[in-house]
Amino acid sequence: MGSLVRTHSCNALGKENIGEEVTLMGWVLRRRDHGGVIFIDLRDRDGLTQVVFNPEVNPAPHAKAHQLRSEWVLAVRGKVSARPGDMANPKLATGEIEILVDELRILNTSETPPFPLDEEVEVGDMLRMQYRYLDLRRPEMAANLIMRHKAVQSIRNYLNDSGFLDIETPMLTRSTPEGARDYLVPSRVNAGKFYALPQSPQLFKQLLMIAGMDRYYQIVKCFRDEDLRADRQPEFTQIDMELSFVDEEQIIKVTEGMIAKLFKDTLGLDLNPPFKRMVYDEAISRFGTDRPDTRFGLELVNLTDIAKACSFKVFRTIADEGGTVRAINAKGCANFSRKELDDLTTYVVQFGAKGLAWVKMKADGEWQSPIAKFFTDEERADITRAMDAVEGDVLFFGADKPAVVFQVLSELRLELARRLDLLKKDVFNFTWVTDFPLMEYDEKEKRFQALHHPFTSPREEDLDKLESDPGKVYSRAYDLVLNGTEIGGGSIRIHQRDVQARVLKALGIDAEEANEKFGFLLRALELGAPPHGGLAFGLDRLLMLICGCSSIRDVIAFPKTQKATCPLTEAPSGVSRKQLTELYLRPDWKE
Amino acid sequence: MGSLVRTHSCNALGKENIGEEVTLMGWVLRRRDHGGVIFIDLRDRDGLTQVVFNPEVNPAPHAKAHQLRSEWVLAVRGKVSARPGDMANPKLATGEIEILVDELRILNTSETPPFPLDEEVEVGDMLRMQYRYLDLRRPEMAANLIMRHKAVQSIRNYLNDSGFLDIETPMLTRSTPEGARDYLVPSRVNAGKFYALPQSPQLFKQLLMIAGMDRYYQIVKCFRDEDLRADRQPEFTQIDMELSFVDEEQIIKVTEGMIAKLFKDTLGLDLNPPFKRMVYDEAISRFGTDRPDTRFGLELVNLTDIAKACSFKVFRTIADEGGTVRAINAKGCANFSRKELDDLTTYVVQFGAKGLAWVKMKADGEWQSPIAKFFTDEERADITRAMDAVEGDVLFFGADKPAVVFQVLSELRLELARRLDLLKKDVFNFTWVTDFPLMEYDEKEKRFQALHHPFTSPREEDLDKLESDPGKVYSRAYDLVLNGTEIGGGSIRIHQRDVQARVLKALGIDAEEANEKFGFLLRALELGAPPHGGLAFGLDRLLMLICGCSSIRDVIAFPKTQKATCPLTEAPSGVSRKQLTELYLRPDWKE
Repeated sequence: MGSLVRTHSCNALGKENIGEEVTLMGWVLRRRDHGGVIFIDLRDRDGLTQVVFNPEVNPAPHAKAHQLRSEWVLAVRGKVSARPGDMANPKLATGEIEILVDELRILNTSETPPFPLDEEVEVGDMLRMQYRYLDLRRPEMAANLIMRHKAVQSIRNYLNDSGFLDIETPMLTRSTPEGARDYLVPSRVNAGKFYALPQSPQLFKQLLMIAGMDRYYQIVKCFRDEDLRADRQPEFTQIDMELSFVDEEQIIKVTEGMIAKLFKDTLGLDLNPPFKRMVYDEAISRFGTDRPDTRFGLELVNLTDIAKACSFKVFRTIADEGGTVRAINAKGCANFSRKELDDLTTYVVQFGAKGLAWVKMKADGEWQSPIAKFFTDEERADITRAMDAVEGDVLFFGADKPAVVFQVLSELRLELARRLDLLKKDVFNFTWVTDFPLMEYDEKEKRFQALHHPFTSPREEDLDKLESDPGKVYSRAYDLVLNGTEIGGGSIRIHQRDVQARVLKALGIDAEEANEKFGFLLRALELGAPPHGGLAFGLDRLLMLICGCSSIRDVIAFPKTQKATCPLTEAPSGVSRKQLTELYLRPDWKE
Repeated sequence: MGSLVRTHSCNALGKENIGEEVTLMGWVLRRRDHGGVIFIDLRDRDGLTQVVFNPEVNPAPHAKAHQLRSEWVLAVRGKVSARPGDMANPKLATGEIEILVDELRILNTSETPPFPLDEEVEVGDMLRMQYRYLDLRRPEMAANLIMRHKAVQSIRNYLNDSGFLDIETPMLTRSTPEGARDYLVPSRVNAGKFYALPQSPQLFKQLLMIAGMDRYYQIVKCFRDEDLRADRQPEFTQIDMELSFVDEEQIIKVTEGMIAKLFKDTLGLDLNPPFKRMVYDEAISRFGTDRPDTRFGLELVNLTDIAKACSFKVFRTIADEGGTVRAINAKGCANFSRKELDDLTTYVVQFGAKGLAWVKMKADGEWQSPIAKFFTDEERADITRAMDAVEGDVLFFGADKPAVVFQVLSELRLELARRLDLLKKDVFNFTWVTDFPLMEYDEKEKRFQALHHPFTSPREEDLDKLESDPGKVYSRAYDLVLNGTEIGGGSIRIHQRDVQARVLKALGIDAEEANEKFGFLLRALELGAPPHGGLAFGLDRLLMLICGCSSIRDVIAFPKTQKATCPLTEAPSGVSRKQLTELYLRPDWKE
């Protein structure tokens, strides 16, 4: 008995193949017995084909087929045949044909799977991750991984064609303080020393520019030991790019080309760049966030000037003391029930709001609101006018320190959009946000922190303010926001030794500390560093949006839980005392 | 002053561009002053262009050009002009033209580099690694990284076109015992638990096959915490592949296609597969190693039968007691001096030889040799005939346990080839070695060890011997050897639960240990695992051979030293006590 060689995938055959002898291999998805004939839906990565065991046509394979169960692995050889007229399945690529089996080989059996693969059943996340190899057999999960494959292929083709070199940077590297906690790897050869897994290849890609590599990219794993949320994983994948001898415009242009090709190659969409742009200050003012979701309105309106002069003492005091008063007009939402309004209040309180003042707009500009009585008729009219409010609208107010108001109203805005079903998954709104502050004051640490990272270039015209008014220095950074999610960000980097030193100093890093942490970069800046800049995209998030998934876990082959564990392999796991000793470490946990 | 936009690379311009206005950006490689005119060789990643500052044509940039030094970074705008007839440089792609500079911008200055970049000077490895960004500016190093970029592009294109999916597997994973030591990553969230960095994605790629992904590949970092040698790095890059529903022949065919395209795309060579094949036993017998370098002869000849009956007691005893006697005929080497013969003896002693018996062939089959006297005339004639020896040849003998003889003679064979200059760098001899033993007995551990890994399938016809004579079971493994270097290896894997259990048992791993270590794989084999197999290539070594380098460090952007350190970033480095405490660890080293 020679070995069978597969001739086609389970998604390949149609009417044009009728009469051909073929060999398919795959898994038993479903088995049906009809009048003594056995029908199997045979599944592989690419699709389904119906294979038929007819005792009158070929009794030997039919006799063997009786034992077949779900997820058994088969090879079948037979003839492609037209399905009887009324049996064709137009939903299936192979729906017009079936295979009349001449030879059946059982390549492997299967126990009953812990969850069915042929139905739309809700399966718990832990079970899905424990049996990931079964979960990935489900067509929607396989489709996600195939989409991811296509996406990286599209990106690589574009960057290769655009003169970028794919260059690998080290995984075992030096801890570079980028805000997040490093994963550490103890060294066995160097007692008491540790590698860090990279949070990003930031410094290496800058060094590659200084090395003259001109255009670099890498699709690369990065690591952050942070507490996990739904859209975070301890290891994540970054599309990392850097270019020499360019400014913002050239970087934005090459990036837009990449994203446009990506959406064309994966979803068949024409994005037609250039994308919209918005400076940071405008994004904050209109949307309360530097990640504006522009698929819907509900923009913030600044009422601070009105508040300063109004009779409502709460607003007036806040406005006078450097706070801000802003509001959102929820158009046509006056049918919100009291309970819904209460729910929204509860919702915003978690983001720091002390409450949520609202106004339901009635006929003739009349206000229905707990705070209506605190305003004069004229003040109400001013606010109504400023908010462009008409009967049937609801106004929501935020009055507090600016940071609180912006966060509360931006979150409220998104929550309203969810309730009003404004977040269309098939709309892809891209916005470049530019002109970020270079640094912001950290009240807890009592010093300035880089908004992006310490290697971001200040705008040339703001250099003077580095020492005198560092909070007013804007940077040459740019983020790309898609539907309210930051999918990428980058900047023109500092390429002059003295500017880098001044920025580090403004960030409270003195010469000694700078040398200790970034000495090698500072030295490299003295030896012919070209002007350069770049960008990094979060591949997992981008794929999540492309695939329309609600979690990045659905676009990662082997993701981890929120506790950073892998239910399949049971990583992380214990190690022997000998392994620890070799690494010059002792346990400090209860065994 | 608007910003200049680069129009061409420094390798792009020729006669056809004469008269065009262009803008180039790059580094000052050399500066020459001739009769008041300043000539700069401007260098970028792609090449060199001569730019000319002529005080009579354009005094302003000329005045500025006086300060230019090596490795300063420039933008120059000017007109492409033909070089005066006798000044053309045919060795340079841009050798027929020069740029007459109208505008010079100094984008950055540079201190004097610690080693010159414009000359063929020997620079110490440590200095090169410390200033890697300068080292990479040297054209031969830049060419290596560009070649690597081309290579991965070629491989990806081939595999994408062959139905493989590029799928990422985790970096933070579970320790899987594959023979080498793991790099460990302590978990902060799970006290006392550790991730391991992958030695290879072996189990994940098998799980992807069980998940129905059909064809997988990944170009992926792998990690081994072993003592380093010249061709080893703590992290290395693997081309990792796995296929379902195939046998050895299909895997070998798809792989040969990939390698052939790779050599065509990088070196322009036609390899014309199929490659030669050799079973393991033949490789050992003819070359003493399973990594035969077939670029030259000097094959081993088995003299054990002759030795068994000969008068030389040393040989006879070894042959009688299960040892082996083999020899190499170094054709035409009778002019080796006594010192050279002594050096060769010293050389082989490090591989376990107790000495090195030799015979210089004289006229009429006469032996000049310290051991000549121990043999009868007839025995000498027998050996001379067996060795196909004629006047001017030298015979070298190995007599010991087989493992020692094979290692000693295979190393001697290579050393002779080096001395005779037989290792041609432009010859690429590929050999598949197949039919390896599944396991070999480890005298130290007193148990069988997998020759590849425990998931390698035995040959079907040997299954019976798994319990009765495990040392005689051959595997379905295959290695691809290029010029004596193993560049890749793989196998058909075990896809049946019961066979996997039997192999683990034969390796001395009982059911409990198997479950503890590989329980998730064993479980997966119960749930519909398809027949599958695959391969992994060492990308670094492959590139080293393609680029003709003597160290893999020359094809890695940021390599590590033999002590696993990075002289550029000074990784690994110390960490704070707080970081350790967060990981539930205490130091066990002298601070």
